[in-house]
Amino acid sequence: MTPPAATGAAPGRAAIIGAGVIGAGWAARFALNGWDVAVHDPSPNAPRAIARCMENARAAWGALFDAPLPPEGRVVFARSTAEAVEGADYVQESVSESLDLKRRIFADIQAAAPDAPLGSSTSGFTPSDLQRGARAPGSILVAHPFNPVYLLPLVETVGSAQTDPALMDAAEEILRGLGMFPLRLRKEIDAHIADRLLEAVWREALWLVRDGVATTEEIDEAIRLGFGLRWAQMGLFETYRIAGGEAGMRHFLAQFGPCLALPWTRLTDVPPFDERLVELIAAQSDAQSGRWTIAELERIRDSNLTAFLRALRRADWGAGKLVAAHEGRMRAVAAADRFRVPAGENGAPDPGWPLAIAAKALRAALAGWDDAPAERWTATQSLVEQNRAPRPAALVTARCRLEPQSGEALQAIVAIVDEDGPLARVEQTLVRERS
Amino acid sequence: MTPPAATGAAPGRAAIIGAGVIGAGWAARFALNGWDVAVHDPSPNAPRAIARCMENARAAWGALFDAPLPPEGRVVFARSTAEAVEGADYVQESVSESLDLKRRIFADIQAAAPDAPLGSSTSGFTPSDLQRGARAPGSILVAHPFNPVYLLPLVETVGSAQTDPALMDAAEEILRGLGMFPLRLRKEIDAHIADRLLEAVWREALWLVRDGVATTEEIDEAIRLGFGLRWAQMGLFETYRIAGGEAGMRHFLAQFGPCLALPWTRLTDVPPFDERLVELIAAQSDAQSGRWTIAELERIRDSNLTAFLRALRRADWGAGKLVAAHEGRMRAVAAADRFRVPAGENGAPDPGWPLAIAAKALRAALAGWDDAPAERWTATQSLVEQNRAPRPAALVTARCRLEPQSGEALQAIVAIVDEDGPLARVEQTLVRERS
Repeated sequence: MTPPAATGAAPGRAAIIGAGVIGAGWAARFALNGWDVAVHDPSPNAPRAIARCMENARAAWGALFDAPLPPEGRVVFARSTAEAVEGADYVQESVSESLDLKRRIFADIQAAAPDAPLGSSTSGFTPSDLQRGARAPGSILVAHPFNPVYLLPLVETVGSAQTDPALMDAAEEILRGLGMFPLRLRKEIDAHIADRLLEAVWREALWLVRDGVATTEEIDEAIRLGFGLRWAQMGLFETYRIAGGEAGMRHFLAQFGPCLALPWTRLTDVPPFDERLVELIAAQSDAQSGRWTIAELERIRDSNLTAFLRALRRADWGAGKLVAAHEGRMRAVAAADRFRVPAGENGAPDPGWPLAIAAKALRAALAGWDDAPAERWTATQSLVEQNRAPRPAALVTARCRLEPQSGEALQAIVAIVDEDGPLARVEQTLVRERS
Repeated sequence: MTPPAATGAAPGRAAIIGAGVIGAGWAARFALNGWDVAVHDPSPNAPRAIARCMENARAAWGALFDAPLPPEGRVVFARSTAEAVEGADYVQESVSESLDLKRRIFADIQAAAPDAPLGSSTSGFTPSDLQRGARAPGSILVAHPFNPVYLLPLVETVGSAQTDPALMDAAEEILRGLGMFPLRLRKEIDAHIADRLLEAVWREALWLVRDGVATTEEIDEAIRLGFGLRWAQMGLFETYRIAGGEAGMRHFLAQFGPCLALPWTRLTDVPPFDERLVELIAAQSDAQSGRWTIAELERIRDSNLTAFLRALRRADWGAGKLVAAHEGRMRAVAAADRFRVPAGENGAPDPGWPLAIAAKALRAALAGWDDAPAERWTATQSLVEQNRAPRPAALVTARCRLEPQSGEALQAIVAIVDEDGPLARVEQTLVRERS
C-alpha cells in the first residue's frame, strides 16, 4: 500500500466498519473529501443512518466552505468486513465499546488487509488493548473522533510501542487531509484525553441530578451560557491564564490551587447507576429536549457549529484555522491542472521546468484563493525534490496545496506528477502585500 | 429600598466591593446598562483594572448589539465599603475566596446598607456559610458570574432558607435587567453547579499534565477543537441525547453507563499541588500562550465570544435568545417617551387612555426594533393593571419593553407612569405577518 498522504493526501479508498453515529460520521467526512467509501454494518438500519448523515454533512459543508467541494466519493455497502476492507487505503473501526468484539473484527479486517492503517474510534481502550493477539499489531492505532465527525476537527491519535511509526505518520496525514486535527497522545491511557475530562464532568453531573441539586436542563444551561461559550475558542488553561489577570498563570494557580483541598466534588465516589437514575435523567431530558426530534437537534447543532467555525475562520483562531487550511486545500485541488513541460535545447526539457510549471500552478490556485484582487503576493520559490525529468512538451499534472501561515503569509507546495508518478516538488512562500 | 425591578428593572445604583477581574466585570455590566456604580477596592491597581475592563466591555457591547446602548452609568471610586454601599439598590461582593474576609466585609456592608440585596461572587461558599453571624442574613445571596462577566450571561443564584424570597426574586429581576440568566439552584452545595463541573475537569487536567500524558496546550486543543465547540450551544445532556441517535437518551445511557465502572479517571485521588506542578503548568502555559499579552488574549476572547453570541442570536438559540431579549429591552428603553393623555368628556381622561398611549408607545418601540418595513405586526392589547387616573391632557411617560417569544411573536409590556408613580400597565401580544 502507498499511503495516499505520500502524494499529497489525495483521496483514496476508505473502509468504514460499524455505521452507528460515529461510523456514519466518518463515512461522510471521507466521502465529502472525495474518498470512495465501503461500509460494513450488519444492522438493517445502517443504510438509512448513513444516508441521513450524508445529507446532514452535505448541508453543513455547503454552509461551511466557500470553496468548491471536491467531487463526492462513492459510498457502497459491503456484505462483509472482508469485502469492505479489500483494497482499502485506510480502515476505520467504530463498533460498540467491547474489547472482545473489537478484537474479533480486527481479526477479520487484518485477514483481508493487514497493511492498511487500522484506526479505532474507541473512546476508552488503549492501542495496546486492541493490539493484543492481532495479526498485524503495527498497523493498529486509536483514532478517536468527536460527534459530529464531519464537523468537529479533533481526532485523538494514539499508538503503542508496537505501532509502526511510519504508518502512524501516514495515518495522521490522511486525517489532516480530511480537515481534521490529529492530536497525538504522548502516552497511552484509558479514555485518552478528552473523554477523561468528559467522564469527570459526566460523573459529577450524574451526582447533581441524583441529589436533586439541578435538572439536566439546568446543568446544560450552566454549561452553554457560561464556560461552554469560552471553551469553543480557548481551552481550560488559556482561559484560566486570562482569569489570573495581568499576573497570569502563576497568580491564578496560587489563588485557586488551594481549592483542591476543598470538598468541591463528589467524584471520589462513583454514583450508583441504577434504573432510578436512568429514568430520572431520561425523563428530565425528555422535558428539556423532547419537543425536537433527534433529526431536528442534529440540524440545529450543525448549523450552530457551522456558524462558530465560520466566525473562528474570520478571526483566524482555533478551529477556524483548520477550516481555512482545509478550504485552501480544496481550492487548490479544484485548481489542479495539466501543464505542458517547456522544451529546452537538444530535445531535453528546459532546465527550469519545475519552477515554470509551479509558478503557473500557483497562479491558478491563487485565482481561486485570493478574493481581494487589489492585493498582490510576493513569492520565493525553491525546488525541494526532483525525481526525474519528463519528456519535453509532455502534459503533466501540477497540484498546488496552499497552507495559510500566521499573519499574511501562505505556504504553497506544488507537486508535479505524470502518469508514472512524482516528478518534482516545489515549495513557495508567499507574502501578501497591500497595494 | 424599592428594588429597581419593581419599576421594570430601570437602572439604579450598584455598589461593587472588590475590583479584581470579576468585580471589574460586574462594574462594566452594570455601567453599560445605565447603572451608576460605586466601587471600593483598596488595591492601587483597581482604577486601572476597572478602566481596562470598561474599555473591553464597551468594545464588546458595541460589536454585540445593534440597538443604541443606554447612556452609560457613572463609575466612581469610594474610599470605604460604607461609602460605596450608601444608597445602593444592589451590592455585589467579589473579594478573594476567604470566608473570614467575606464575613468581615459583609459586616461593613450591612452596617451601612442592611436592606440592599447583597450578592456574593463566591465560587465555592454556600449562602449559609456567608450568612453565619451576619446582621441581615435575609439580604444575602450567592450571585456567581462567569468571566468575562460583561459577556457571559450565566449567573448562578443561590439562597438559603434564611434568604428573603422576595429579595431573591428582586435580585434576579435586577440581574435579568442586565441581560443575564439567573440560574437558581434547588439546593445549596459547595461550588454550586458549574464550578463543580469545572473543578472535576481541572483535577483531571492536572493529573494529565503531571503524568506527562499531555501538555496544557494539547489539553486546550482537545477541548476547543472538540467538545468545547459543542458546549457553546448545547450542554452535556442535550449533546448526549443526540449521540444516542434516534434511540435517544435511554439508548445513550444504556451504552455508556457501564463505563462508570471503568477506571477512566484519576479523580478518586487528589493530585498533590506542589511547586513542581505549578512550575510545570506555568511553563507550559507560557509556551502555549506567552506570545500574547493578557490584554491581547482578552480582546481575542471577547471578539470570539461576541461572534458566537451573534451567531446564536441569528439562530434564536441558547445564549442568543438572551442577547435578543436584552437588545429588545434596550431598544424599548431608547424608545421610551412622553405622551399626552387624551381628554374625554366632563374634564376626565378619555376612558381608553391606557390603550391609546400604549399603542403609541408600541409604535415608537417597534420603529427601533423592526428593521424590515415590509413586514407588519398584528397586536392584541389588554389592560392588565390600572392604578389610578392621570389628569386629562397631562404628559405621562410610557415605557415599552419588547420580549421576543418563540417564532415570530413578540410580547410588549407598556408601563405608564407619571411623576407620582405607576398609572397603568398594558400587555400586548404581537405576531409578525409577512406581507
